[in-house]
Amino acid sequence: MVQRIAALIALPLLLPGLAAAEPLPSWNDTASRARIIDFVAAVTDPDNAGFVPVAERIAVFDNDGTLWAEQPAYFQLYYAMDFVRRHAADHPEWRDEQPFKAVLDGDMQALVASGEEGIVKLVMASHAGMTDDEFDASVAAFLATSRHPTKKRRYDELVYQPMLELLDFLRANGFQTWIVSGGGIDFIRVFSEQAYGIPPGQVIGSQIEMAYELRDGQPVIVRRPAISFIDDKAGKPVGIRRHIGRVPIAAFGNSDGDLQMLQYTCIGRPGTLCGIVHHTDAKREWAYDKDSHIGGLDAALTEARERNWAVIDMAKDWKVVYPLETSGE
Amino acid sequence: MVQRIAALIALPLLLPGLAAAEPLPSWNDTASRARIIDFVAAVTDPDNAGFVPVAERIAVFDNDGTLWAEQPAYFQLYYAMDFVRRHAADHPEWRDEQPFKAVLDGDMQALVASGEEGIVKLVMASHAGMTDDEFDASVAAFLATSRHPTKKRRYDELVYQPMLELLDFLRANGFQTWIVSGGGIDFIRVFSEQAYGIPPGQVIGSQIEMAYELRDGQPVIVRRPAISFIDDKAGKPVGIRRHIGRVPIAAFGNSDGDLQMLQYTCIGRPGTLCGIVHHTDAKREWAYDKDSHIGGLDAALTEARERNWAVIDMAKDWKVVYPLETSGE
Repeated sequence: MVQRIAALIALPLLLPGLAAAEPLPSWNDTASRARIIDFVAAVTDPDNAGFVPVAERIAVFDNDGTLWAEQPAYFQLYYAMDFVRRHAADHPEWRDEQPFKAVLDGDMQALVASGEEGIVKLVMASHAGMTDDEFDASVAAFLATSRHPTKKRRYDELVYQPMLELLDFLRANGFQTWIVSGGGIDFIRVFSEQAYGIPPGQVIGSQIEMAYELRDGQPVIVRRPAISFIDDKAGKPVGIRRHIGRVPIAAFGNSDGDLQMLQYTCIGRPGTLCGIVHHTDAKREWAYDKDSHIGGLDAALTEARERNWAVIDMAKDWKVVYPLETSGE
Repeated sequence: MVQRIAALIALPLLLPGLAAAEPLPSWNDTASRARIIDFVAAVTDPDNAGFVPVAERIAVFDNDGTLWAEQPAYFQLYYAMDFVRRHAADHPEWRDEQPFKAVLDGDMQALVASGEEGIVKLVMASHAGMTDDEFDASVAAFLATSRHPTKKRRYDELVYQPMLELLDFLRANGFQTWIVSGGGIDFIRVFSEQAYGIPPGQVIGSQIEMAYELRDGQPVIVRRPAISFIDDKAGKPVGIRRHIGRVPIAAFGNSDGDLQMLQYTCIGRPGTLCGIVHHTDAKREWAYDKDSHIGGLDAALTEARERNWAVIDMAKDWKVVYPLETSGE
């Protein structure tokens, strides 16, 4: 009887194994896919010297260019421009003030000419001076209504199907999946759960200052126009320490901004997995690396080759790029 | 056959219910215990108007005075003093410099007289100027070897048994449990998983600046002597937004430093639960509130009564205070 009950209890534990389809179906049968599968097999096998307990199975992912596209400009910049257009009626002064005038005129050349100072002004106008709920609603409205300038798709449709499968595969094997982005933490949180299955509490990113107050007796968080933390380059390992408090065992990025995160995860730590998504696919996506102003990849690609990190060749390793290719749309 | 398989699959789902002991065994059968149990019953019942999906079941807890004791001084201060004693041989200048001389002489009066400037110097000397791994090891050594000045127990034995049961009860009902402390985030992380079952990634606290670098080719995070974020009072809702990105549905604290976290969780949000641990037990623990220099509780107690938050009366609501009372030690 005891044996029978034990069998009954064990049965559902076996079912997921029986039911599991081949992992990573949108990946071609190349070295990249094999490395991922071998890594997961090793860390989840209690008899393997590289076994890692569930609590330490932490994988981190850059967002722009790693989980979704980033060309011809970061999608968060399109949000900022969209915000300015939406709120122009309340800000008549924007008609004569850069970089707002450039945005309202659709003059990208003038916007670029406004330089870093212009971009910071644009970001602060569209990310601060409102409550957190107002900001979240503003990003959600942008995502629901705007379309990518050339792909003509919603921005959150331009996520990478093979990376979604990688996230699922890792989570199915006991991993926590975290985003570690140079982009804005609260911008990403608006869509991370639905797009990637990553809850807001597992998103790390750049931040502005915030203040708590009671407004008409109700608690609000007000977003203030000052940068608090830049989660890029050497900031990424710091962001990981701040939010996770543990060193990941897997990290994926696509640009030099991810180099320190990859170093932090993999240098001196055998059995870990670091990977770089190399944008080699001018036909289905974009092809760019060291000469790109967005997602520049130079030192990190050199170091990836020296250290034998996985270099994921988008054109060769991925059967499809976007989920919409799999749905027959 | 299908029916039979369905029954086999359902069986383990029923077992936890059959096997579950009464929750909160160290709580007396008072209004506080009933409020907690009623709250959990409501948010987990899909047929209840107050049902909350698992992803939003987030409960936050202050640490000092809420999950473990905080008298006669914050335990983190004992760590700082212990650090100075351990490292005095490397710092001959400390013999003549306050507040270090006060610590080495065991002169608490002189330490208090060194004021906030002295305390900041003491904290920076013992929390910065080392790598994160060195800091973690230093805190672990303190916890393993030091004893509370009057209770003569390891500090991590002075956690509250009823609160451990509350954490377990919430987690068993699909909650995420987070710490939101005015204390140092990395100090708490060293023991939070073992003491409370709370992983490092679910600890929020005050922070100092950090920097990533390669040292002899190996990645390190270096702790810098500058405050980055104070997770106290109005900082607590900001810390929650930064790390969790969602408003909790339950919050527990014990002092005025927790007031804003409780407001943020419960004002205008029916069906949530806010609670204050009131230190009323001079016999088993300590009795203090508005006049205490540590864990002062005045405005938050007044507001708790006005807003009908749960006020947990340690003397009346708790059968035992420390786990060691239940183990017959």
